[in-house]
Amino acid sequence: MTINQFVESISSYLIEKRRSFHKMPELGFTEYVTTYRIFQQLDELDFNIFVGEETLVADERYGVPTQSELDEAEVRACHNGVPQAFIEKMQGGQTGIVAVLDTGRPGPHTAMRFDIDALPIKESQDDEHLPASNGFRSTIEDCMHACGHDGHTTIGLGVAKFLHEHHDELTGRYTLLFQPAEEGGRGAKAMVAKGWLDDVDYFLSGHLGIGDQEAGVVSATSSRFLASSKLNVHFKGKSAHAGVEPNEGKNALLAAASASLHLNSIPRHKDGATRVNVGRLEAGSGRNVIADYAYMEMETRGETTELNQYMLEQAKRMIDSSGQLYDVETEVEFMGEALNGRCDAEFLELIPKANEDNRFVTGVIDTIEVGASEDVTFMMERVQDQGGKATFMIFPSSIPNGHHHPAFDFDEYSLKTAVSTFAHTIQYINEQETI
Amino acid sequence: MTINQFVESISSYLIEKRRSFHKMPELGFTEYVTTYRIFQQLDELDFNIFVGEETLVADERYGVPTQSELDEAEVRACHNGVPQAFIEKMQGGQTGIVAVLDTGRPGPHTAMRFDIDALPIKESQDDEHLPASNGFRSTIEDCMHACGHDGHTTIGLGVAKFLHEHHDELTGRYTLLFQPAEEGGRGAKAMVAKGWLDDVDYFLSGHLGIGDQEAGVVSATSSRFLASSKLNVHFKGKSAHAGVEPNEGKNALLAAASASLHLNSIPRHKDGATRVNVGRLEAGSGRNVIADYAYMEMETRGETTELNQYMLEQAKRMIDSSGQLYDVETEVEFMGEALNGRCDAEFLELIPKANEDNRFVTGVIDTIEVGASEDVTFMMERVQDQGGKATFMIFPSSIPNGHHHPAFDFDEYSLKTAVSTFAHTIQYINEQETI
Amino acid sequence: MTINQFVESISSYLIEKRRSFHKMPELGFTEYVTTYRIFQQLDELDFNIFVGEETLVADERYGVPTQSELDEAEVRACHNGVPQAFIEKMQGGQTGIVAVLDTGRPGPHTAMRFDIDALPIKESQDDEHLPASNGFRSTIEDCMHACGHDGHTTIGLGVAKFLHEHHDELTGRYTLLFQPAEEGGRGAKAMVAKGWLDDVDYFLSGHLGIGDQEAGVVSATSSRFLASSKLNVHFKGKSAHAGVEPNEGKNALLAAASASLHLNSIPRHKDGATRVNVGRLEAGSGRNVIADYAYMEMETRGETTELNQYMLEQAKRMIDSSGQLYDVETEVEFMGEALNGRCDAEFLELIPKANEDNRFVTGVIDTIEVGASEDVTFMMERVQDQGGKATFMIFPSSIPNGHHHPAFDFDEYSLKTAVSTFAHTIQYINEQETI
Amino acid sequence: MTINQFVESISSYLIEKRRSFHKMPELGFTEYVTTYRIFQQLDELDFNIFVGEETLVADERYGVPTQSELDEAEVRACHNGVPQAFIEKMQGGQTGIVAVLDTGRPGPHTAMRFDIDALPIKESQDDEHLPASNGFRSTIEDCMHACGHDGHTTIGLGVAKFLHEHHDELTGRYTLLFQPAEEGGRGAKAMVAKGWLDDVDYFLSGHLGIGDQEAGVVSATSSRFLASSKLNVHFKGKSAHAGVEPNEGKNALLAAASASLHLNSIPRHKDGATRVNVGRLEAGSGRNVIADYAYMEMETRGETTELNQYMLEQAKRMIDSSGQLYDVETEVEFMGEALNGRCDAEFLELIPKANEDNRFVTGVIDTIEVGASEDVTFMMERVQDQGGKATFMIFPSSIPNGHHHPAFDFDEYSLKTAVSTFAHTIQYINEQETI
Repeated sequence: MTINQFVESISSYLIEKRRSFHKMPELGFTEYVTTYRIFQQLDELDFNIFVGEETLVADERYGVPTQSELDEAEVRACHNGVPQAFIEKMQGGQTGIVAVLDTGRPGPHTAMRFDIDALPIKESQDDEHLPASNGFRSTIEDCMHACGHDGHTTIGLGVAKFLHEHHDELTGRYTLLFQPAEEGGRGAKAMVAKGWLDDVDYFLSGHLGIGDQEAGVVSATSSRFLASSKLNVHFKGKSAHAGVEPNEGKNALLAAASASLHLNSIPRHKDGATRVNVGRLEAGSGRNVIADYAYMEMETRGETTELNQYMLEQAKRMIDSSGQLYDVETEVEFMGEALNGRCDAEFLELIPKANEDNRFVTGVIDTIEVGASEDVTFMMERVQDQGGKATFMIFPSSIPNGHHHPAFDFDEYSLKTAVSTFAHTIQYINEQETI
Repeated sequence: MTINQFVESISSYLIEKRRSFHKMPELGFTEYVTTYRIFQQLDELDFNIFVGEETLVADERYGVPTQSELDEAEVRACHNGVPQAFIEKMQGGQTGIVAVLDTGRPGPHTAMRFDIDALPIKESQDDEHLPASNGFRSTIEDCMHACGHDGHTTIGLGVAKFLHEHHDELTGRYTLLFQPAEEGGRGAKAMVAKGWLDDVDYFLSGHLGIGDQEAGVVSATSSRFLASSKLNVHFKGKSAHAGVEPNEGKNALLAAASASLHLNSIPRHKDGATRVNVGRLEAGSGRNVIADYAYMEMETRGETTELNQYMLEQAKRMIDSSGQLYDVETEVEFMGEALNGRCDAEFLELIPKANEDNRFVTGVIDTIEVGASEDVTFMMERVQDQGGKATFMIFPSSIPNGHHHPAFDFDEYSLKTAVSTFAHTIQYINEQETI
Repeated sequence: MTINQFVESISSYLIEKRRSFHKMPELGFTEYVTTYRIFQQLDELDFNIFVGEETLVADERYGVPTQSELDEAEVRACHNGVPQAFIEKMQGGQTGIVAVLDTGRPGPHTAMRFDIDALPIKESQDDEHLPASNGFRSTIEDCMHACGHDGHTTIGLGVAKFLHEHHDELTGRYTLLFQPAEEGGRGAKAMVAKGWLDDVDYFLSGHLGIGDQEAGVVSATSSRFLASSKLNVHFKGKSAHAGVEPNEGKNALLAAASASLHLNSIPRHKDGATRVNVGRLEAGSGRNVIADYAYMEMETRGETTELNQYMLEQAKRMIDSSGQLYDVETEVEFMGEALNGRCDAEFLELIPKANEDNRFVTGVIDTIEVGASEDVTFMMERVQDQGGKATFMIFPSSIPNGHHHPAFDFDEYSLKTAVSTFAHTIQYINEQETI
Repeated sequence: MTINQFVESISSYLIEKRRSFHKMPELGFTEYVTTYRIFQQLDELDFNIFVGEETLVADERYGVPTQSELDEAEVRACHNGVPQAFIEKMQGGQTGIVAVLDTGRPGPHTAMRFDIDALPIKESQDDEHLPASNGFRSTIEDCMHACGHDGHTTIGLGVAKFLHEHHDELTGRYTLLFQPAEEGGRGAKAMVAKGWLDDVDYFLSGHLGIGDQEAGVVSATSSRFLASSKLNVHFKGKSAHAGVEPNEGKNALLAAASASLHLNSIPRHKDGATRVNVGRLEAGSGRNVIADYAYMEMETRGETTELNQYMLEQAKRMIDSSGQLYDVETEVEFMGEALNGRCDAEFLELIPKANEDNRFVTGVIDTIEVGASEDVTFMMERVQDQGGKATFMIFPSSIPNGHHHPAFDFDEYSLKTAVSTFAHTIQYINEQETI
């Protein structure tokens, strides 16, 4: 059976798994059910499996959910049939799973990363939105796979099946990293700290759906990762009756509103693209009370680490000053980050060659600009620092709506394109290295 | 037994009840437990009792909680021993209770109103805060009796006991209105619509704690009620990935932040005091998503109805324009209101005379400025429109912190002052009218 | 000749003078022409006259114009026929004039104040605006008597004529203070410092046009003076090319814009009326340059000195913080102030009695609320501190548009009402004191 | 004499002229003196000269100064010895001059553009600022050559001298365009409309000082011109006394402040660099008057015409909404624009070859990013539309401070580099075309 035939043979498996993950989205570090379901698939195959606390250094995680959010996730996991002993391995939000296949034969160490978390977005119920009209819309309130990580997880399982089937023909070692909490740049660093990337020769990863191309096209590398910092900001003021003595209050809501506006007025930078976003704001308790508290989730980004640093410094000063405007205390919590990554040029040649016979690839282009942040950059940097080569491929997919949109979806054909690309590339590396 | 002796005799009953209500605060239209507990007290006495749907016109309520908030309140009521049949009488948030005593003897109809709801404020845990150090701090997360309505409810029960005990000496009719949802001006209008105030000769009500005076002082009337409008505002934008394509979003969070700031810049008015407050703001879902939704709870106030109208018109235009700034749709929901009330001058003479022998009153002053909004003004207006007389007394109480403060508290001695003042006043009116 | 007959006899003189002053408005401390024209009128009468530097303590002035503004004013004065020697007495903006009449006979010392400055407002050219259609519109670009000081100055001349004519019948001393720079609260304090008010028994002053009443009504006193502070704010940032390197700038324009918005959001105060206004803002040089400088003229006010102090403190913090938002330095200059004055109750009886036979007075009311700031309060305070009595009367005048409006005007009949009221009051005090 | 020797021979002439222009900066369309001084230099040489109204289509100019600004400029020109007849040719701000040399021999038509206007910036008086310490600081208040156009003008004269000296060796035609009002993108379009660029084969232009390189380096082309729109915005509100009746005003100052802040919060765009700047803001008249008027000078930019269009549309909506916030009318005036230009690739080869023997050129690089706007793009577009070739070279110059900085200056050695580059390039084109 050729790789093409193999991929075709698991076509309905891929679609079924993807839809199953799509129905059960989980936010970063609460992927208890997702992790267990990945485990169930891998458990039947030839892998050494590491779960939860075995996969990452807990203290290196950013933005761990609150205890009550974790408790809720564990209850849900329990209701969804995850065994208690398995839940315990993930306690405190140590989600994620790593599968290692050692062929025992000399050869390179290839690592692949698949991110598994979802977003706090309420999924569209529109009939034109395929997951809604086809019955696999999210079953979790206000939570959705709106960035394709359901597909990424599925691709990882497809690649695992390929490695399992072709176990005897392969050389070297293979590490599959199913990473929690990519959104917000919170999980990769903790996996890197565990050492998984320390002796990797080839690092392959990728993303579904970016770019204007149709499903079938593959980009060998990607560029323009934005370095990013993720911050939570707390504003502490003083409440007072808004009718009786408004002057006695210190208005935390206004301080946060002012910060939101001014942050968006940080000057654009001559050296390249920058971003800032206050994505969430919660302030005050009652209508007739001067708000004594406000809470903000925000981020800065920059085309380079320096540009992000510029945004971060300006943001900090503005947050501080916005507090002072209303005599309100501010506290900034660091919640996550991503680096300014780069792919190795070797893949510009390697990927096209490896996929010459790939039936599911209609063309390979050099690069697509990501224009967003990805903490896969922590993994790539570690690999490259040790002399390994890393790429982050793009699998365009004719998406009807942008990433993070309530009606985001992708063409499931891309699942085959991606699995097939990983498989052909693995085989090609194998052939090259063993000649 | 004189009234003074009677009041002294129920002293510990009053304190016990007040503390019990304080421990179980409930927000407007979710006072299921509170209503039931009032019922339990009144049920032993000589009253015709009306509960929930019998007390108000449901459609005339403002700002009814969401179904899930009501469901939660019903579950809590169930857990706290409220019988299912009783809960059903309050279904959909029709809380509140009315007790009527008809002596059968000719005489005036006197109505009294006691408000029973609490506020969405997290109560202080400070040792200096008496409810905390004395074990009757709120048991409900983020909910607190921070405006003395626990005391008001208790005073109502004390007055009920007085009416019951002195049943045989009294003439005319007595209606005790235990009103839900005073905060936000949401409940009074619905009770008025039911007709309770239509033939009232004397309307008595009051508030604990306003003013600088010590407990023991009584103000015969109050002034400077602020007319008020309560609004919820919804901002509907468009989400987008904040890193990849920020220009595709329509930022509802920024529209709401801008509205918050600009609302506070509505010009002061030459004709008198005005107020505006955005007390609550919630916007956005995730840090890296342009917020497609924001929600704001706000209010305007004015020393006169015209001044409040001025604020309301300016506010509406500013909300609309703030939406347009970011190409975001806005929708304004009307959630409550209070009028610009006035007390009848007759009480300036009546209250002091009635309380000449009141042991718990150290002095009667003419008036205290409220400087806040009260929907009791709807009841007062109805009474006055029909030719009746109305007052809203103040019972100062050396409060350590302002109303709506997390460590608000009052001197429980005021409970006796208030019950005793109601009782002496009732007796005096009785004597006057029957001579 | 009775006072009534006397006043009627100078009727056309008053109108002519008023219109002449109206055509030649001059801003505070640049009233070179106005001062000279007052001098020309007084010079023919029985007064000791003090001009410019003899009338005030220069260092106690607030908000002296720049040298180039003063130079321009001196050139204009020269062109308008003011002799060089006279200009020299006013050099450096020491405008204003004081006229003293000592009868030599024992009696009280009565001081009267008339303010003479204009406003930086472009006068309406509308046909409905009487000064425009009657040919006495301002001849000075962007400068206008929009607060009636042309009338006040004229009233002062009318009173001077009365004192001159009735010299022989009067006792005691009379001091007429023609004060510069009332707008902005800049001139009164400097005249007080010179000692003119130190031994005054009766202080009379007044204002045209406030209130809804028709011309002919007189208010014996006024109330609700707003205490006020006048500030200039300088914002110093850093310029940069707005296209090439916007990040290199420190945007003083945005800091000032932010300050303007936030200042207007200072919470209203429970204790009474407050005001804040940024009346002028100038920022930046060229369209494509990040603005390195901004300049703001602003003021705070309060119904009491404490309320103004509250506003001032909040304002200072907000200005400072707004600078920090954009990393811009701020500097606050103190430019003027007014106190929270009060009139003596004696005048409530005195003014009506004194004007019983006043043909030009249709009624005397107790008080009218000013609701603005007046540095006459410095004079009143000094008089009252020494045991004298002070009032600030109001002469309503059916004004078609509010004060400081480009089409402000008043009914010239009020000139007679005012002169007549001053005269009758002087005569009455004289009679009372000499009995 | 070689070109190198020729250029060296006019070295002190270039420095003298540059300093003389530097001392007499004039804003766009008021370059009366500058135009005359250019004329005086060209008049002695072999050119047909066109002045003022002969050089442009008046109606196609953007942002013509007010009549009083033009009057002032004409008075200054008169004082500086410009003959009345010459001034008349420029009346109404029709400044600029064109010099044409027709060799009479067949050959290409080469046009060159030199911009001559200055900026509204107050020049530094710092000793470290060479023009200050060497006595050629600007003699015009608040006006400065802070973008090197004094140098550009001088280079044009140097090139003119070269053409004159080498008249007999050259073929074809040469047009030197001394363009007014480049700042703000106001003058080029009007010259294009006159037809000067209609049959041009080679268009050469350039800018001093951009980039980090030292003087001596030349960039053959430039890139990243920002398309730009220049707008003036008028806000019309209603004045009122800020103390007496603040509610009667419609605050134009606050509307403009709000617009300034919000304009800076227009979202960054995924497709590339954008800019927005409010460079000037003037609002209000007096401190105690609600401002009834505000005026704003602003601009938008984009890396492409589409990006600028995006900014422009957002800006217009925000200006409109900011007006509505305060019930203030807004009016947007279009004042200038620049396109998103591109240089022809032919020059990447042509310039280095032409300057192989250029003693004043230490190296030729391909391109430097301008990152700003230039209305030379209108000329380039016209040339390219007709099939001609156009470039805009950069002459780096070790500038101590950025363009538009009060202490901007450049290394005068660059004058020789630039003249020499133009001359060598002209000679090379001549040789190529005539072979």
